[in-house]
Amino acid sequence: MKVDSVDLFYLRMPVVEDIGDGSQDSLLCRVVANGHVGWGEAVCSPTVGIAAWITPMSHSGCHPVIDSVLGMELNDPADIANIYNQVRKNSFYGLLQSDLLISGIEIALWDCLGRSLQAPIWQLLGYKKSEPKLPYASVLFGDTPEQTKQKAVDIKNSGFQAIKFGWGPFGTSTVAADEAHIYAAREGIGSEAKLMIDAGTVFKESVDQAAKRLPALKQAQVLWYEEPFDGYAISSYGQLAKCEPKVSLAGGEGAHNPYQAKQLIDYGLVDFIQIDAGYVGGIGNAYKVAQYASSKGIKYVNHTFTSQSALSSSLQAYAGVAQSDISEYPMEPKSLCQELTLNKVEIDSQGMIKAPEKPGTGIEINIDAVKKYLVDVELKVNGKPLYLTPRI
Amino acid sequence: MKVDSVDLFYLRMPVVEDIGDGSQDSLLCRVVANGHVGWGEAVCSPTVGIAAWITPMSHSGCHPVIDSVLGMELNDPADIANIYNQVRKNSFYGLLQSDLLISGIEIALWDCLGRSLQAPIWQLLGYKKSEPKLPYASVLFGDTPEQTKQKAVDIKNSGFQAIKFGWGPFGTSTVAADEAHIYAAREGIGSEAKLMIDAGTVFKESVDQAAKRLPALKQAQVLWYEEPFDGYAISSYGQLAKCEPKVSLAGGEGAHNPYQAKQLIDYGLVDFIQIDAGYVGGIGNAYKVAQYASSKGIKYVNHTFTSQSALSSSLQAYAGVAQSDISEYPMEPKSLCQELTLNKVEIDSQGMIKAPEKPGTGIEINIDAVKKYLVDVELKVNGKPLYLTPRI
Repeated sequence: MKVDSVDLFYLRMPVVEDIGDGSQDSLLCRVVANGHVGWGEAVCSPTVGIAAWITPMSHSGCHPVIDSVLGMELNDPADIANIYNQVRKNSFYGLLQSDLLISGIEIALWDCLGRSLQAPIWQLLGYKKSEPKLPYASVLFGDTPEQTKQKAVDIKNSGFQAIKFGWGPFGTSTVAADEAHIYAAREGIGSEAKLMIDAGTVFKESVDQAAKRLPALKQAQVLWYEEPFDGYAISSYGQLAKCEPKVSLAGGEGAHNPYQAKQLIDYGLVDFIQIDAGYVGGIGNAYKVAQYASSKGIKYVNHTFTSQSALSSSLQAYAGVAQSDISEYPMEPKSLCQELTLNKVEIDSQGMIKAPEKPGTGIEINIDAVKKYLVDVELKVNGKPLYLTPRI
Repeated sequence: MKVDSVDLFYLRMPVVEDIGDGSQDSLLCRVVANGHVGWGEAVCSPTVGIAAWITPMSHSGCHPVIDSVLGMELNDPADIANIYNQVRKNSFYGLLQSDLLISGIEIALWDCLGRSLQAPIWQLLGYKKSEPKLPYASVLFGDTPEQTKQKAVDIKNSGFQAIKFGWGPFGTSTVAADEAHIYAAREGIGSEAKLMIDAGTVFKESVDQAAKRLPALKQAQVLWYEEPFDGYAISSYGQLAKCEPKVSLAGGEGAHNPYQAKQLIDYGLVDFIQIDAGYVGGIGNAYKVAQYASSKGIKYVNHTFTSQSALSSSLQAYAGVAQSDISEYPMEPKSLCQELTLNKVEIDSQGMIKAPEKPGTGIEINIDAVKKYLVDVELKVNGKPLYLTPRI
């Protein structure tokens, strides 16, 4: 079959707050091939992704993404890899946003192919089994240590055995203030549960500032210290990894291609590589990183802060890697992301999750939610409409 | 003074060909502060850059670029650095295109500041003198070795002492075919002139394929072998740098922040780092890379394939670095880029160029050309126009 159509939908909450919560809008991609429908979400500023889809060509290395996708063969995983490679080849210079847009489209291609072949994506990737993962609740720090502690208590009581706090005030005032939040989080969840701290790139490239938090992180026995730096500041990661006391580092959500993830492993010396399939170029690239991480003895973890369909998409790449046994679970998404799917990645009686056994991502998109949150976009060049909101 | 307005202009040739020629369109940025006007060009798919400027906020890390620029203080170079840092902080996740857009705006900020202070940008950067550079003619390979040779002869006759051939058929067929082009180029320019070869990222990450061209490159005594790989494939650069016969490597035009350029130096082991101020985040970042390169004994070279204003902008960052003494000179730009400026970076009687002594970039934009090539763009979200083509 061939890629008959690709449609992009900009979904948005009625009010978008200026907080570190990526679940407030979505660029939803729909692929149709021979009557089969697949869906994927790009972690991408929606109108910018739409422009990347349809912008007029600038030169041979700056084609709109549509030129490399529409009408292409879609019969097996190699066809998806070919489409991705075409995008990289045709849109690599002057169109950085194409890396993000193709992530959502590539996921939709896998979903479409999986549904047409009646197979889950992880099976198409060659995995024999979808292994259980421990989901960790991923939430923002409270404004105060008391709020952070209360959040921790609530989440522990809801059954989670692992929790990650991030963003919010962390790194924005004093070391003592951060320490208070770290200790409050540990106190709230108790000594048994796994605790992770996400600095949200706040220290940019300052190893010194990031290192000042290490003693408290060690004391609170965190499993990892996430994204202290700008995702590109690889050498800062490498330096912090060698600081005492030793705390495991995690990063990678900013990787928009597999090269960057490999550099974070090879030169940044992270112990956990966190990949968002909706950012790294799709499931094929995420799978490459998972295999590389395994070969290096590094644990692979999904990055997901939005919907259940994004969660399933990000689980596929390492579904069969038993030693990578922990998974980010979006805990507080906005109603848009809650309503976007008709079903979920279920948490079983052992408190574990795994990539679904159903075809494609195994998650069904709720068309009513798409209609409810849809934002109308119009892009015209010299009076000619290049993009109009598609019908749903 | 404050940034009173920023306007973006999409300029385009009437016909855009599917060739590796980046001079076929332009995203021209105009900054006005207290009546002073500055111009800059972003190497950026124009409608995608426009969307990055004005897209609705997705979350705290995904603001439109406008939020970090408009109304900001602009009195000295530190203010420009502050604006850039705000963009990185507010638009770093989900808005990759912001790195390219801010490049053009940042240049316009420098140009505006320089004109208000009546100083060339290189002086504001702290350089005492604008040092002469040897301009090299940068052209595409011919379709056949005979065409390549004829181009080389013509350019040599026009007075250039250095010439770079790139893109076109290179790397797309056999090793022998590439060797024929390399030897034809050397034959055409004679044994005295400097010759560089640009592979245009054609080998992606294949060290083996790139290495097969080394003997001919050595034989032809090329000064450097440019961009054999995807700009992110740092480890492939590092491996090729250690291959025999030893040929100096060059790369960096794909660096959209200084981190990537540093990695190409530290891990990719390039001998020449090539930076486009309109891609790397602006002149401030380009300057950082130039300083880092000097500290490592690496030569810095501008990357410019478009207009004379882009050339001046890219010269500023290393204007005072005497040991970095070679400069890419756009040789065959389309009429858009030829007509875009009223004056040029002149080639002196010694065949050398340097960053102009006049305020700002020292290059004047031709408003008639802006009007002539202007493309009308309209972006609406929920019926509300976010971007309409500004008046010129």
